[in-house]
Amino acid sequence: MAITTKQIPGKKPATGSGAPAPPVVTFTSDFGSGSPLVAAMKGVVLAGCPTAVLVDVSHEVPRFDVSAGAFMLFAGTRHFGGGSVHLAVVDPGVGSARRRLIVQAGGRYYIGPDNGLFAIVIDEVGVQRVIELPPQPGGAPTFEGRDVFAPAAAALAAGVPLESLGSPGDPPIPLPDTGPRVLWTDGFGNLVTNLKPPARKLRIHNHDIVATVKTYSDARPGEPFVYVGSMGYLEVGVRESRADRLLGARSGMRVEVI
Amino acid sequence: MAITTKQIPGKKPATGSGAPAPPVVTFTSDFGSGSPLVAAMKGVVLAGCPTAVLVDVSHEVPRFDVSAGAFMLFAGTRHFGGGSVHLAVVDPGVGSARRRLIVQAGGRYYIGPDNGLFAIVIDEVGVQRVIELPPQPGGAPTFEGRDVFAPAAAALAAGVPLESLGSPGDPPIPLPDTGPRVLWTDGFGNLVTNLKPPARKLRIHNHDIVATVKTYSDARPGEPFVYVGSMGYLEVGVRESRADRLLGARSGMRVEVI
Amino acid sequence: MAITTKQIPGKKPATGSGAPAPPVVTFTSDFGSGSPLVAAMKGVVLAGCPTAVLVDVSHEVPRFDVSAGAFMLFAGTRHFGGGSVHLAVVDPGVGSARRRLIVQAGGRYYIGPDNGLFAIVIDEVGVQRVIELPPQPGGAPTFEGRDVFAPAAAALAAGVPLESLGSPGDPPIPLPDTGPRVLWTDGFGNLVTNLKPPARKLRIHNHDIVATVKTYSDARPGEPFVYVGSMGYLEVGVRESRADRLLGARSGMRVEVI
Repeated sequence: MAITTKQIPGKKPATGSGAPAPPVVTFTSDFGSGSPLVAAMKGVVLAGCPTAVLVDVSHEVPRFDVSAGAFMLFAGTRHFGGGSVHLAVVDPGVGSARRRLIVQAGGRYYIGPDNGLFAIVIDEVGVQRVIELPPQPGGAPTFEGRDVFAPAAAALAAGVPLESLGSPGDPPIPLPDTGPRVLWTDGFGNLVTNLKPPARKLRIHNHDIVATVKTYSDARPGEPFVYVGSMGYLEVGVRESRADRLLGARSGMRVEVI
Repeated sequence: MAITTKQIPGKKPATGSGAPAPPVVTFTSDFGSGSPLVAAMKGVVLAGCPTAVLVDVSHEVPRFDVSAGAFMLFAGTRHFGGGSVHLAVVDPGVGSARRRLIVQAGGRYYIGPDNGLFAIVIDEVGVQRVIELPPQPGGAPTFEGRDVFAPAAAALAAGVPLESLGSPGDPPIPLPDTGPRVLWTDGFGNLVTNLKPPARKLRIHNHDIVATVKTYSDARPGEPFVYVGSMGYLEVGVRESRADRLLGARSGMRVEVI
Repeated sequence: MAITTKQIPGKKPATGSGAPAPPVVTFTSDFGSGSPLVAAMKGVVLAGCPTAVLVDVSHEVPRFDVSAGAFMLFAGTRHFGGGSVHLAVVDPGVGSARRRLIVQAGGRYYIGPDNGLFAIVIDEVGVQRVIELPPQPGGAPTFEGRDVFAPAAAALAAGVPLESLGSPGDPPIPLPDTGPRVLWTDGFGNLVTNLKPPARKLRIHNHDIVATVKTYSDARPGEPFVYVGSMGYLEVGVRESRADRLLGARSGMRVEVI
């Protein structure tokens, strides 16, 4: 399902000036919404590409939760156009030997540590090219988001060719655990799983969820249900209530198809 | 009170290039500050209008609290210029039969579900035109913010005429409860009511608030007071403390003028 | 340590159109991430400078904590270029007699109340010029961020000369407490102090922290350690855990060098 304003017949995107679309750089991290470190990364990106349009995907990835981050990165970036640049830092191993990557996937560029963070994007759209970034000798070993990834994001946004930023590398590693499970809990307490349609009965944390619906208003108040979420994965919700609390469930928990 | 940089005598807004001002699209929701769904909506807006300037009003509207959302939408958008586009999603009824609207008010465009969310904007500046958006057959029934409202916001920002986006409709519905009450609690614990000046004595949650002041520093520490808030409504605060905690009060509570 | 994309040899920043870099305005406050008052300030800035690129540094400065705000303002803005404009409001004394300032420092402009908020920026880069802004007679006495500081930020971003916005003033006041202490706790629970390198043994809240490391992955799990943080100050962390909880420490607490 392609979601664009092409849905409005006979209308084409307009930039207001005939100029090419400005480059886009997005940011995903577990720094917390109030962290000034995000602005530090943005300052570096704007220093290298002053016309970049900056968009936050989330800085509320649960700390060090690479699986949740992988889903949030996919969900927040899948509607951006070709050439858009997506910096992601959820990185329990910052400063260690894991690789630093630029992954071209679906025509977009993803930049961050090689720890599984790109796995869901790649599941969905495949990998086109992988570049390994060199470490930054003068950089702070605790903040590669600013000192390694942000300069690379700025360079890509400014039109520097991908291959000039590092050396070709092997594909990124997958997520460690690939069995059915909860990837992320949204702000309403809905549980996003890594299962694909069709909607079917699930067991989570010893609860059987046997109702399946198309949208929240089709559900009975208080009864948990399975539905196809807006990102294409099965989710579990409760109408005007929180499935995470009702079921005592959280990110990482296993899910069984029943 | 018009608050613009016209306050600086002899200076006119400059775009730095003589170009027309870029279109502005703002976002208000109860998705939570860390939700990647906001970025999904922004991706759709930028796909349709790459030069749009994107501004978040709030994604911390209390879940499903349409009254608080109506105030926050008004407060966050009233200083934007004519032609600016304001997408708002606080929508307990997503996927149900409530209408999907574009409301032109005060020269600005407001887009979202017809559930009272536009009521305070309309109280303040009236309604110019109302357009009903058609449902989006291929869209996700749980995420009209992305699949119905964001494409409409992009189209308006890109200069598509309002009337081409749907059919003329009746005015939006008001908020269900219009008696005096607390609309929103700000980050400092100040209680914003739906009462207009002059400042006068109020009773909230069995507490009489009898002091009225012009600004926080005029108040005595520890004593709650009524003042005219920066958005033109009566508010209740406590100097360097939290009125919500001191009074045990929260959004939705009734207020009496005493 | 200058962190810019100059690190990528032979590549110059490109704006994509040959146009000059758009003006940048950042925002720092203790309003809370969900406050619509931030968007109100942005509306005023865009009214006066429609091409401004708007960046949030943080709206999660701990309420009224000027020391934490001073660090966050420094950390979030130090990588922005010359001419960038940084509006900051952490202001227990709003509406009182403290001065309203524009401080030019490190080629950037900082705007806000004179209560110590600019102290760490000035410690790092010195002061070039100081302008006192006049009060805004028609403005809301509780929201100078919108009615005094935002119009000034817009004017500077639009190219209005600094000296035309007010009268020359004395340097800003310093922070009240200048002894060694915790300035800010980041989202991972790391404690940022106001001590400069080299890393050495510290005592915080009756705990001796005797390990010093270069990066998190060099540390032993569970043992607190001192390291040079990414902003150039000594920090205390615990690998994949929270130093603030382990040590029972928080912003403002004294630190001893042992």
